[in-house]
Amino acid sequence: MRFFLPKENGFFTLFKKINDAQKEIAQLLKDFASHFPDGDEYEKKAKDIERQADAVAHEIIDTLNRTFITPFDREDIYLLTNELDDIVDLIENVIHNVGVYAVISKREEFDQFADLIIEASQALGKLLDHFQELKKTDLLTKSKIYIHELEDKGDEIFCKGLHTLFTNEKDARTLIQWKDILEDLENVMDKYQKVSDIIESIVVKTS
Amino acid sequence: MRFFLPKENGFFTLFKKINDAQKEIAQLLKDFASHFPDGDEYEKKAKDIERQADAVAHEIIDTLNRTFITPFDREDIYLLTNELDDIVDLIENVIHNVGVYAVISKREEFDQFADLIIEASQALGKLLDHFQELKKTDLLTKSKIYIHELEDKGDEIFCKGLHTLFTNEKDARTLIQWKDILEDLENVMDKYQKVSDIIESIVVKTS
Amino acid sequence: MRFFLPKENGFFTLFKKINDAQKEIAQLLKDFASHFPDGDEYEKKAKDIERQADAVAHEIIDTLNRTFITPFDREDIYLLTNELDDIVDLIENVIHNVGVYAVISKREEFDQFADLIIEASQALGKLLDHFQELKKTDLLTKSKIYIHELEDKGDEIFCKGLHTLFTNEKDARTLIQWKDILEDLENVMDKYQKVSDIIESIVVKTS
Repeated sequence: MRFFLPKENGFFTLFKKINDAQKEIAQLLKDFASHFPDGDEYEKKAKDIERQADAVAHEIIDTLNRTFITPFDREDIYLLTNELDDIVDLIENVIHNVGVYAVISKREEFDQFADLIIEASQALGKLLDHFQELKKTDLLTKSKIYIHELEDKGDEIFCKGLHTLFTNEKDARTLIQWKDILEDLENVMDKYQKVSDIIESIVVKTS
Repeated sequence: MRFFLPKENGFFTLFKKINDAQKEIAQLLKDFASHFPDGDEYEKKAKDIERQADAVAHEIIDTLNRTFITPFDREDIYLLTNELDDIVDLIENVIHNVGVYAVISKREEFDQFADLIIEASQALGKLLDHFQELKKTDLLTKSKIYIHELEDKGDEIFCKGLHTLFTNEKDARTLIQWKDILEDLENVMDKYQKVSDIIESIVVKTS
Repeated sequence: MRFFLPKENGFFTLFKKINDAQKEIAQLLKDFASHFPDGDEYEKKAKDIERQADAVAHEIIDTLNRTFITPFDREDIYLLTNELDDIVDLIENVIHNVGVYAVISKREEFDQFADLIIEASQALGKLLDHFQELKKTDLLTKSKIYIHELEDKGDEIFCKGLHTLFTNEKDARTLIQWKDILEDLENVMDKYQKVSDIIESIVVKTS
């Protein structure tokens, strides 16, 4: 796989920017977990990161529409961009929803998910850092399998958390708040898995 | 942009019919708001409008499949048709759900959304009325920006409404009913925004 | 419509396997309904069937990517495969969720849906059994209409069930559990309808 035509470098620079955004917002979620539920400051920062990522995503699509030769399939660039942008949106949404739903106290699953998301964020970060020179190598295979394992753990935390909630909790507010927040967190892990699958499929096609 | 080939007029006639349907059902929602929650009559009318819009949408897709030369991209006609049809479906669903969920008393957000939806409906209506001769003009830009502003207001009403609900309400039924209805109403505003974006993109491409 | 080129038989063999999976898991749901909510055994079996169906779906997509001549449109094979796989996923999810949500007692709508799903499963099963030699015949038309009627019944059960729930039930847990389970069950019927529509559209295109 050769990505070194001058025109093509633009895409990788832009993907690095979205990569930065997903790493930054994952870290923000982790920091927020330590200050839960005081979210005002984190909500603002999350909104900023989300807007930046959105702007970069628009720039990628614009570049795509003006470029004849792309480093890989147009559809794949489009898909990868949107799914990466979704990661940022979903994490922003988690932080936002804790405030909107007026959540008062934290459940342990929030911390567990924040840790998983940091792990997934770093594994994906490494993949995207090496995207330009990526071949079907150990790094790719290992990272993808690792992200799938994290997603499995997320599934487990989600199901156990929901089960505990519905077994012990009677308060309607708490049930609805945490059912939704756990679902949101699980969706974040799903997205990380999806993005790692897309990257693998791109590398397999172009190598 | 020239849309005056005889064959192509069919599409615009059909789009006007869906436009009528979205305006009619937005007005119906507003009328229903004044008689809330007595929805039987409104539910029936909404179902009728929804079926008519559905039939028109099918006619557009059929026409699309039988027509070689289309006034703009086939994918765009397809997308615009489905999203317009979705507006009607979503509003029908709001009226229907008030009955299904056995909602008893109205919250102020319902009226606020009904007003926003009327505004969005009329702004979109104007765009579609002039669709055939639309160029990248003030009307287009202003209407699109206006619909985006309305959607922002909808977002605000949604978040504030949800926050109030989760802060003050303890009754499980009320929480679930209104969380869903507010989400449905917010989705209607999202669709209006999406349709205005699609129309802009079509006009930009063809002009 | 002629499907008898040697290369093409592979697809029909694979579709028969997914067909078996959807029939098997529909029957499993019905059996589970009689032992509700003791789901451990059924959950495991459902997971097995879901994994098998998933593997077959992957095989179909792989075959698709390696085959030049396909018995019908690639997009249609892709769509049909995913939607059939979704039926299995959704039914697995219903059984799984009864456990996750710690549901204690059954509501009559569960049995009613289990019966509808068996009916839809068998009607679709017959369509897929004769897929290879299917023309626009009575079997196709009748089965499709029948599945649409079943979906209408499902809609009715869903709306009535939700209305009863929100009229009589005050317990937050029960409200949330059954709202979600009824939605899941209704989605299964939607998928059966969608798959029958896809099959009709494929047959119309190729005959």
